Amino acid sequence: MTVDTAWPELSELLGDRITRSKSELEAHGGSESYFPLTPPDLVAFPETTEEVAGLMRICARHGVPVVGWGAGTSLEGQAQAFQGGLCVDFARMNRIIEVAQGDMDARVQPGLTREALNDELRATGLFFPVDPGANASIGGMASTRASGTTAVRYGTMRDNVLGLEVVLADGRIIRTGTRARKSSAGYDLTGLFVGAEGTLGLITELTLRLHGQPEAITAAVCAFDTIGGAVRAVTDAIQMGIPMARIEFVDAATVAVFNSYADAGLDEVPHLMIEFHGSPGSVAEDAAVFGDIVADHAGRGFQWATDPEDRKALWTLRHHAYWAILASRPGARAVVTDICVPISRLAEAVEATQADLEAHGIAGPILGHVGDGNFHAILMFDPADAAELGRVKAAADRLVSRALDMGGTATGEHGIGIGKKGFMQREHGEAWSVMGALKRALDPENILNPGKLAPDAN
Amino acid sequence: MTVDTAWPELSELLGDRITRSKSELEAHGGSESYFPLTPPDLVAFPETTEEVAGLMRICARHGVPVVGWGAGTSLEGQAQAFQGGLCVDFARMNRIIEVAQGDMDARVQPGLTREALNDELRATGLFFPVDPGANASIGGMASTRASGTTAVRYGTMRDNVLGLEVVLADGRIIRTGTRARKSSAGYDLTGLFVGAEGTLGLITELTLRLHGQPEAITAAVCAFDTIGGAVRAVTDAIQMGIPMARIEFVDAATVAVFNSYADAGLDEVPHLMIEFHGSPGSVAEDAAVFGDIVADHAGRGFQWATDPEDRKALWTLRHHAYWAILASRPGARAVVTDICVPISRLAEAVEATQADLEAHGIAGPILGHVGDGNFHAILMFDPADAAELGRVKAAADRLVSRALDMGGTATGEHGIGIGKKGFMQREHGEAWSVMGALKRALDPENILNPGKLAPDAN
Repeated sequence: MTVDTAWPELSELLGDRITRSKSELEAHGGSESYFPLTPPDLVAFPETTEEVAGLMRICARHGVPVVGWGAGTSLEGQAQAFQGGLCVDFARMNRIIEVAQGDMDARVQPGLTREALNDELRATGLFFPVDPGANASIGGMASTRASGTTAVRYGTMRDNVLGLEVVLADGRIIRTGTRARKSSAGYDLTGLFVGAEGTLGLITELTLRLHGQPEAITAAVCAFDTIGGAVRAVTDAIQMGIPMARIEFVDAATVAVFNSYADAGLDEVPHLMIEFHGSPGSVAEDAAVFGDIVADHAGRGFQWATDPEDRKALWTLRHHAYWAILASRPGARAVVTDICVPISRLAEAVEATQADLEAHGIAGPILGHVGDGNFHAILMFDPADAAELGRVKAAADRLVSRALDMGGTATGEHGIGIGKKGFMQREHGEAWSVMGALKRALDPENILNPGKLAPDAN
Repeated sequence: MTVDTAWPELSELLGDRITRSKSELEAHGGSESYFPLTPPDLVAFPETTEEVAGLMRICARHGVPVVGWGAGTSLEGQAQAFQGGLCVDFARMNRIIEVAQGDMDARVQPGLTREALNDELRATGLFFPVDPGANASIGGMASTRASGTTAVRYGTMRDNVLGLEVVLADGRIIRTGTRARKSSAGYDLTGLFVGAEGTLGLITELTLRLHGQPEAITAAVCAFDTIGGAVRAVTDAIQMGIPMARIEFVDAATVAVFNSYADAGLDEVPHLMIEFHGSPGSVAEDAAVFGDIVADHAGRGFQWATDPEDRKALWTLRHHAYWAILASRPGARAVVTDICVPISRLAEAVEATQADLEAHGIAGPILGHVGDGNFHAILMFDPADAAELGRVKAAADRLVSRALDMGGTATGEHGIGIGKKGFMQREHGEAWSVMGALKRALDPENILNPGKLAPDAN
């Protein structure tokens, strides 16, 4: 077996920082999602880019698959070694290399988590805005093109990664992008590796765009009698150009979970959760205009959270929603859908989703980043009940079909992995074969995260 | 010759919309830059994507190079057929296919010009913000990853193209992206074709992100005694998060040209030109804070332009700067530099550029998009004086070297073409060979704009 022939060389390179211990393999074989445990054959903990390159060269020679591992929070099986091989855990490459305050950027290693980065940045007056909820690693967030609650204002990882260092399939090390804010110097390699899920190379360093901590922040929740009213308030606000920093929708079922999980004390109807960033004057102006829009759509019961503790409580509620929803049905797991549609179709998409789930008797609270047209239904099932999983997956398929029919995408922010791969041909048509050509060009032996995202090699 | 063998088929496909007439060939052989006239062998005027695909299939069979043509405003020779072949002029594919007001996007054909698009959009309350100055075609702007005066606020073409239709080297037609605002569904093909200068495919349709016309706009110029003062005022404003919609620097030499060309009546010292977009309240607040920063750097002589005519005059001055500078030395042509550096190095880069030009006796007014760290020196030379061109090119090389040493890029927005190709290896190192691998994967016969951007085929 290839792993066995590679082992002596790998072991010589990393010593006791590469392991075949069963507990480590199992700790790197799962995810927060519904896929079965699939342990890799080996787990490595490199400390430098050169070590990653050395691992790659050995694995290339022996034909061993290589899968990157950040914080293990991906939802589509991206970090699982379904074909075995080497799991490269970036836990020991988790440093901030440099914060350049004047340039408002930072060079970091891929294993750094989002929360650790922002803790370090706090004293600088800067922050990294991309916030997928989970305390994911920055390398993983780049690899899945993550976004989250703040993308409506600050963009996704696509917009906030200025440059990368990448180890290619043959062990070569390249740098993409520069420290300049923009460039027209050739193909956008940074953009190609962001969202590539480790199928084209392993990211070993990232240069991130930082933003100034806003002078004033204010957040609120407000209630609506209908999903349509809430969603249409958001689309009006977007079209009026109100600069929302976050704008989240939660349906009545999600609010019920908030109430039982965290005593939120909210009316069990659809809500919007909103945040404004700016100067004290602009935040007040934005909030007033938004209040008028909400009133136009029969929204009510504004609860403002201006002090930091209240705001933190509000967003913790939102960030823990996935766990709270799972906790509402002990033992359940979930298929998390992630469609994103044009804003003009959003109300229709949410309403159709809810109607579909009701018609099929599926418990699936809905919540999401409505400012981007992106929302999730958390479709719960009993892992011991294969028939229920089948029904849930069929519902997830219908959601995606509906999104594609509306000109949208199967995944706004969770990525493809293996979970969404079945939709790639339908979403992209012939363009998926172009992705396959790119994959073959950069990884001709198909050892980088094989079986994910791209068409299967012949 | 390959063109001769292809001609009967091409002619049958397009009839009198493909030509070998000398005047058309010459009209498609030049550019606004300093490169010699290099006419293609044929010029085609397709009207549909299917016709473009048909042209590509024929050219692929006969090994005929294919070069796209928009408005002919590129500055690095991108649209010139240095290896002969077929020039595909998109003049007849210049329609707006659809404006989706609710989604704030538009589907357009590549030959549409920026100004024609915004004229059409005026009544909708929306606009397309990317403004390189020249009335370029949208397809050309995407292909060079153009930006311009508004990128500091609205981003570049990278940020404002949501999706594409592309004809590949073998004539296949693909679609990239969706109508959704974000997606994590596989490799970012849209980002790969934007900035590829027609070397990976021909763009036949674009979905563009539109923005709401701001409720209030105010613009101003102000004077500084030193370059350093002006640039440092900008970096302070960026770090304070003031949302500038445009922020342009012009040096004393450029101001002198404004005065002689357009009676601008400005002190012949460095100036900043600034614009704010927002609500009446936010614009006033931004202007006040910016005024304080300017005063901190000994800036003075604010002239505000709040009514549309005054603003138009101000930006016309800026947009005509290139022509005004050329007119200041009759018969001269220019090498236009385009470096972009990290903001923290910008004052140093501008000052070093001016000192270098002075030391070498080169007339080179400096102006640029300082909010992005991007500026141009317009290095004039007498086209009959090869020695002067040599000196000017040597100065341009030194500028780029300095930018790369500072962590910047050879080109912020004009692209590579052939003019900047000599810097690709130095800027990208091994990553340039990755661009070569992508080029070979998508255009194995090297017929798409051969000789530009990517490493030469072996």
